Amino acid sequence: MCADQIERLPTGITGFDHIANGGLPKGRTTLVSGTAGSAKTVFAAQFLAAGIKRGEPGVFVTFEETPEALRRNMLGFGWDIARWEAEGKWVFVDVSPQPEEELVELGSYDLGALLARIEHAVRSIGAVRLSMDSLGAIFTRLNDSRVVRNELFRIVSTLRRLGVTAVLTAERTQEYGEIARYGVEEFVSDDVVILRNLLEDEKRRRTVEILKFRGTSHQKGSFPFTVIPGEGIHVIPLSAIELKQRSSSVR
Amino acid sequence: MCADQIERLPTGITGFDHIANGGLPKGRTTLVSGTAGSAKTVFAAQFLAAGIKRGEPGVFVTFEETPEALRRNMLGFGWDIARWEAEGKWVFVDVSPQPEEELVELGSYDLGALLARIEHAVRSIGAVRLSMDSLGAIFTRLNDSRVVRNELFRIVSTLRRLGVTAVLTAERTQEYGEIARYGVEEFVSDDVVILRNLLEDEKRRRTVEILKFRGTSHQKGSFPFTVIPGEGIHVIPLSAIELKQRSSSVR
Amino acid sequence: MCADQIERLPTGITGFDHIANGGLPKGRTTLVSGTAGSAKTVFAAQFLAAGIKRGEPGVFVTFEETPEALRRNMLGFGWDIARWEAEGKWVFVDVSPQPEEELVELGSYDLGALLARIEHAVRSIGAVRLSMDSLGAIFTRLNDSRVVRNELFRIVSTLRRLGVTAVLTAERTQEYGEIARYGVEEFVSDDVVILRNLLEDEKRRRTVEILKFRGTSHQKGSFPFTVIPGEGIHVIPLSAIELKQRSSSVR
Amino acid sequence: MCADQIERLPTGITGFDHIANGGLPKGRTTLVSGTAGSAKTVFAAQFLAAGIKRGEPGVFVTFEETPEALRRNMLGFGWDIARWEAEGKWVFVDVSPQPEEELVELGSYDLGALLARIEHAVRSIGAVRLSMDSLGAIFTRLNDSRVVRNELFRIVSTLRRLGVTAVLTAERTQEYGEIARYGVEEFVSDDVVILRNLLEDEKRRRTVEILKFRGTSHQKGSFPFTVIPGEGIHVIPLSAIELKQRSSSVR
Amino acid sequence: MCADQIERLPTGITGFDHIANGGLPKGRTTLVSGTAGSAKTVFAAQFLAAGIKRGEPGVFVTFEETPEALRRNMLGFGWDIARWEAEGKWVFVDVSPQPEEELVELGSYDLGALLARIEHAVRSIGAVRLSMDSLGAIFTRLNDSRVVRNELFRIVSTLRRLGVTAVLTAERTQEYGEIARYGVEEFVSDDVVILRNLLEDEKRRRTVEILKFRGTSHQKGSFPFTVIPGEGIHVIPLSAIELKQRSSSVR
Amino acid sequence: MCADQIERLPTGITGFDHIANGGLPKGRTTLVSGTAGSAKTVFAAQFLAAGIKRGEPGVFVTFEETPEALRRNMLGFGWDIARWEAEGKWVFVDVSPQPEEELVELGSYDLGALLARIEHAVRSIGAVRLSMDSLGAIFTRLNDSRVVRNELFRIVSTLRRLGVTAVLTAERTQEYGEIARYGVEEFVSDDVVILRNLLEDEKRRRTVEILKFRGTSHQKGSFPFTVIPGEGIHVIPLSAIELKQRSSSVR
Ligand SMILES: Nc1ncnc2c1ncn2[C@@H]1O[C@H](COP(=O)(O)OP(=O)(O)OP(=O)(O)O)[C@@H](O)[C@H]1O
Ligand SMILES: Nc1ncnc2c1ncn2[C@@H]1O[C@H](COP(=O)(O)OP(=O)(O)OP(=O)(O)O)[C@@H](O)[C@H]1O
Ligand SMILES: Nc1ncnc2c1ncn2[C@@H]1O[C@H](COP(=O)(O)OP(=O)(O)OP(=O)(O)O)[C@@H](O)[C@H]1O
Ligand SMILES: Nc1ncnc2c1ncn2[C@@H]1O[C@H](COP(=O)(O)OP(=O)(O)OP(=O)(O)O)[C@@H](O)[C@H]1O
Ligand SMILES: Nc1ncnc2c1ncn2[C@@H]1O[C@H](COP(=O)(O)OP(=O)(O)OP(=O)(O)O)[C@@H](O)[C@H]1O
Ligand SMILES: Nc1ncnc2c1ncn2[C@@H]1O[C@H](COP(=O)(O)OP(=O)(O)OP(=O)(O)O)[C@@H](O)[C@H]1O
Ligand SMILES: [Mg+2]
Ligand SMILES: [Mg+2]
Ligand SMILES: [Mg+2]
Ligand SMILES: [Mg+2]
Ligand SMILES: [Mg+2]
Ligand SMILES: [Mg+2]
Repeated sequence: MCADQIERLPTGITGFDHIANGGLPKGRTTLVSGTAGSAKTVFAAQFLAAGIKRGEPGVFVTFEETPEALRRNMLGFGWDIARWEAEGKWVFVDVSPQPEEELVELGSYDLGALLARIEHAVRSIGAVRLSMDSLGAIFTRLNDSRVVRNELFRIVSTLRRLGVTAVLTAERTQEYGEIARYGVEEFVSDDVVILRNLLEDEKRRRTVEILKFRGTSHQKGSFPFTVIPGEGIHVIPLSAIELKQRSSSVR
Repeated sequence: MCADQIERLPTGITGFDHIANGGLPKGRTTLVSGTAGSAKTVFAAQFLAAGIKRGEPGVFVTFEETPEALRRNMLGFGWDIARWEAEGKWVFVDVSPQPEEELVELGSYDLGALLARIEHAVRSIGAVRLSMDSLGAIFTRLNDSRVVRNELFRIVSTLRRLGVTAVLTAERTQEYGEIARYGVEEFVSDDVVILRNLLEDEKRRRTVEILKFRGTSHQKGSFPFTVIPGEGIHVIPLSAIELKQRSSSVR
Repeated sequence: MCADQIERLPTGITGFDHIANGGLPKGRTTLVSGTAGSAKTVFAAQFLAAGIKRGEPGVFVTFEETPEALRRNMLGFGWDIARWEAEGKWVFVDVSPQPEEELVELGSYDLGALLARIEHAVRSIGAVRLSMDSLGAIFTRLNDSRVVRNELFRIVSTLRRLGVTAVLTAERTQEYGEIARYGVEEFVSDDVVILRNLLEDEKRRRTVEILKFRGTSHQKGSFPFTVIPGEGIHVIPLSAIELKQRSSSVR
Repeated sequence: MCADQIERLPTGITGFDHIANGGLPKGRTTLVSGTAGSAKTVFAAQFLAAGIKRGEPGVFVTFEETPEALRRNMLGFGWDIARWEAEGKWVFVDVSPQPEEELVELGSYDLGALLARIEHAVRSIGAVRLSMDSLGAIFTRLNDSRVVRNELFRIVSTLRRLGVTAVLTAERTQEYGEIARYGVEEFVSDDVVILRNLLEDEKRRRTVEILKFRGTSHQKGSFPFTVIPGEGIHVIPLSAIELKQRSSSVR
Repeated sequence: MCADQIERLPTGITGFDHIANGGLPKGRTTLVSGTAGSAKTVFAAQFLAAGIKRGEPGVFVTFEETPEALRRNMLGFGWDIARWEAEGKWVFVDVSPQPEEELVELGSYDLGALLARIEHAVRSIGAVRLSMDSLGAIFTRLNDSRVVRNELFRIVSTLRRLGVTAVLTAERTQEYGEIARYGVEEFVSDDVVILRNLLEDEKRRRTVEILKFRGTSHQKGSFPFTVIPGEGIHVIPLSAIELKQRSSSVR
Repeated sequence: MCADQIERLPTGITGFDHIANGGLPKGRTTLVSGTAGSAKTVFAAQFLAAGIKRGEPGVFVTFEETPEALRRNMLGFGWDIARWEAEGKWVFVDVSPQPEEELVELGSYDLGALLARIEHAVRSIGAVRLSMDSLGAIFTRLNDSRVVRNELFRIVSTLRRLGVTAVLTAERTQEYGEIARYGVEEFVSDDVVILRNLLEDEKRRRTVEILKFRGTSHQKGSFPFTVIPGEGIHVIPLSAIELKQRSSSVR
């Protein structure tokens, strides 16, 4: 199905690899954008967990939740992160703010130092995959929103140089409209996935959509998914027949 | 129903524990966001009142209403706060502005001192639960909206360290759209509950929704509730059958 | 109908006391918000006029209309303010801008001095009720919109200390959306009433709604009212049967 | 129909006096707000022209169109302003910008001097009516939008002191939403009239509405009008029967 | 049909003179506002071309397209501008930015010098008509958007003094809502025409509407037009019957 | 079909030349605006690739993706850029940010130097076509958004002087509304094409529309297209009959 030159890395997320025509573009960074609770962190962690099952070590850069919280939160999906850490298959780069530390100076955030720590972590375990969760936290600390584009480019470039396949989560405050907070993230990124948590008739419905994969093909449109205890994200790819029915239905 | 690792603390709010799969995540802070009059304060107080009935002391940090006003306002629900205070089961941390004091300097607000007072109060009665009402007031006094994310993180981290299970209320000015005032609160928080007070056909209807519980499952969508004298918030969980009917109804 | 601890003060506004379960919460300040021409000033004056008929003196703090204009404008409702002033039942605190005075310096507005004048007026006639019309004018003179929350709190606190039951009007520029101009007024206030002047099918329709009464119950939803010469605001409470019909009607 | 104390001055605008219960409130200033081309200037001029026919001299303060342009533009309605000027019945206060003069300094606009010129003009012919067209131009020259409220108040106060009945036009850029440009004009003014020029189905339809008359009654809702050569604004008051039909029509 | 005093100058644009009751108001400036590609430049050029056919020389002030580009672009309509220039019937005032010149200083734009050049050009050929295309480019170079109103007034005044009948194009970014970019242009101008390029059902449809002609009458509502090679703008005035049908059609 | 004077350069994009009445205006710059993933880069590259097949060398100026990434991403369409580079038919001007370089100073971006590099590249291979992808990246580095209009003009002027036919891509964050990010790009450009990636019923549909071609005719409205592996953009021009059907279908 994928006749072009962009290699894929299977995510192991049920159904997602199907709509992605094999997985995420290898050696590149995919932006995963969604509102609060849209399952960005589950996606980012599951991407690493699936890699570990295939023998690919992973690095998880966390800006918001502490490693401790993530270890506990992901246990419900059957992912024993602590064990993987002990086995040298999972490494945290912990950039979550320290409760004690005052916010000395806005803008003093040192992106170069962070990238060095990430490089060190990747090297230390020979990481094949990397997740960074989430951009919202890092840019809030920058003192000039105009630099977002540039900083994001530096991150993506460094990850490319390191050869890892990466997932980078981004925050949005609305289900439609701007893709991410600053209106530039989706342009800097090669690949963009959107997670939605739609409120319809007072009920919630989750969907995932590949907005773009530069230089390669993928399934278009959005697909329903659920978050299942003991498993994680479970995408339900519609067959061609179902898609047809759906589109011909009155609206 | 809750096979994952995140323990729950029953809130005692009728029906809510059912949609929360047992209660609020234990040892964490839940953001409760709503418009003016959406019953945030009732939720926050009822959470403590229910704890006291189970033998769990509670701390109520108030930024807006004075302790005196709260004692009186909650009497209508049958909660005798003054007695609980006398019995060492309820402690107020009063951060409501003093009418006499001028607003000396915007931004001079000392979050560190507040956190110390909270810690002292929690220790003094061995509090298990804590409510903080509301964020809107505290951030208005901060002089730089960019620091909201950081300050909120410090609060949440401190509460986690103290081991209490907490409710933190937040203000929003619209029933849909941004979850809370600054567009970042819902990302910093592990758990988010939304209280709505919808105007439909010139009538009001209240609903509660769990937007997210990090790392654990919960009922999705919004559920109707009422505020009943002598009782407080009363959530009406719909049975699976009713839910089905609701969703298949023409709209 | 009102089993809780919050005492009421009948407003004397026909029909309103019914939906308010007896009247405005006694000893507290109620925010009355509405667009231009929504009858805020009529509400504020009628509240005092009704009190005088029950032997309760009142203070009217005016920021926009001069006392002279108010005396004349309210005559159409049969309220002889000049006489009440002579009888020591009504006192104006005139804070309306003086045409001659230049706007020396924005922000030099002295809230402390105003509160002192109000206290003096309340004491001088033993006022039971107070109306302040409107917040919009006072805050326009403040030089920093961030201080609105704090200033409003000081006003409300002072009125509480003085023991009066008060009505405070606020401006909004749209019938729906933000409750008042600065997006914080409704959170600082214990009690909020909304006056609407809806344009439907090129016709105007007035409604009143109690958005919240902290710590006590009230009728929910909005109720039609008219402004009648010789009487003032006349709220038409719908019977339970009518309400049912209204909600079941096709829309 | 008008049992209250607010005297009226007939405008002479066909049909308008009917919906105004007799005319504009005497001795006060009415804000007339509308989009470009909504007939604000026609309204303002017709108000003076009608007065002259009743023996009441008028002052026209013009900020935008030159007196020369106004004389010519109003001829189509049969109003011979030049003659009236010669007869001492109409005086222009010309504040239209002079093409040659550079914009020396924003904010240097001298409102006091303008008010003095207006006072002089009013005195010189014993003016009973005054029109000021339009606020948009005057405030654009002010360098701080926060002072709009105060400046507008000074204008209105001065006109009240001079005893004239006045029309003050204001600009809005949308047919619905904010009443006027700065969101405060409608609160400072005692009386507000809205002129609309609605685009429906690619056709234009004009309506006039009295939004508020402080302290007195008026017809509610909007009424269609046309601008007729040789006559001016012609309002078509709907009979009660027609109104009923209109409101019961399906929409 | 035009009984008033405002003389008209036929534009020569097929059908437009009909809805304009004879043409554009003579000796005045008409603002022609539209989105990108709405045919503003075609309108402006056609206005001059039609004049030349009637023996009236014209000046074209161009801010965006170079004279060279305009000569070529207008050839498709059969307008041989180069020949007319040679014959002294058409003069360009070229204010298009020079590619080589750096943007020395924003705000240093010399409006006085431009007006002098325009005056010189008008005098040199005894111009009767003038087109200026477009305002967007001139104001972008001004460093303070508050001066737009004043600058625009200076332009209009100068043109009035020169006695030419002028077309001034303005940019808007949306088909509905604000008439032009700065929200003031339509108030400063005596006459406003709107060109729309509507997207309906994925098809484009062009319409023209006279929003206002100060002091004189015109057809109301919008009329379809097309841009035809070899001819230019071709307005299709609907007969009264067609208009009726259109308005009664279901929508 | 194209009787006017503006010569065309066939793009080689299937179906597009048909709706463009022959191709892009020769010697000019066409702005191609679209959201993230709307196929702007594919369009820009295909324009060059098609030229090479006709013996016309091309320059690709890249601001976002590195030449290396582009070489790989375009292989899926069968375009062997590396070979073309070796054969002197394709030259990259690489302005993509260097990951190592810190963002020394915002605004220090040297447009003059860039234009010199572009001129050099064009000369070196005698380029006939040029693509520049994308404007978003270049303007983010400028420190003053008011200069966008001027800078864009300098770019367009330089390209005109060089005699190349160019495609310039621009970013937009919404499918409707503002054409491009700064609200001025579409006015400075002679020719504008819009690529849309519409979300309807949870499915994506791509369309292309020629918004304007200055001085020449083109098909109006939007046309569906797909991105096909091994081919690139494939526009499906609707026949007149189909268009008729489409417009008469119920919506
Ligand atoms: N080889 C290919 N085969 C099929 N489809 C492809 C191929 N390459 C790209 N696409 C499609 O084109 C889309 C991206 O196109 P492109 O990179 O040109 O968009 P863009 O508008 O330049 O986006 P951006 O603003 O992010 O630069 C991909 O998301 C994919 O859907
Ligand atoms: N163990 C679990 N079992 C079932 N559902 C779960 C489990 N863990 C998480 N979820 C669901 O996933 C949601 C949160 O997912 P996640 O934390 O990945 O969202 P997010 O997009 O990262 O949110 P944020 O922006 O707040 O970080 C929860 O609200 C819950 O509905
Ligand atoms: N004793 C009571 N009996 C019945 N209803 C009550 C009682 N107390 C409060 N309510 C209802 O709850 C509403 C207010 O709830 P609450 O004060 O908790 O809202 P809130 O979200 O905290 O508002 P705010 O943002 O203004 O603090 C009241 O307006 C009333 O409708
Ligand atoms: N004597 C009266 N008889 C009938 N209706 C009246 C009378 N006085 C006022 N009204 C009605 O009430 C409206 C104005 O009410 P009021 O001045 O209280 O409004 P408001 O909300 O205070 O407006 P603002 O924001 O401009 O101060 C008038 O427009 C009119 O419709
Ligand atoms: N003599 C006339 N005969 C018929 N209609 C006229 C005449 N004069 C003006 N009009 C109509 O009135 C409209 C303009 O009215 P007017 O100038 O009063 O509007 P305005 O609200 O003052 O606009 P602006 O905000 O631009 O000053 C014209 O566009 C025209 O439609
Ligand atoms: N010779 C021609 N034949 C047919 N149609 C043409 C011709 N010239 C221009 N057009 C049409 O007119 C449109 C552009 O018109 P014009 O340049 O006047 O628009 P504009 O409003 O001035 O745009 P801008 O804001 O970009 O300057 C073209 O997109 C094309 O559709
Ligand atoms: Mg997360
Ligand atoms: Mg509260
Ligand atoms: Mg009032
Ligand atoms: Mg006017
Ligand atoms: Mg143009
Ligand atoms: Mg691209």
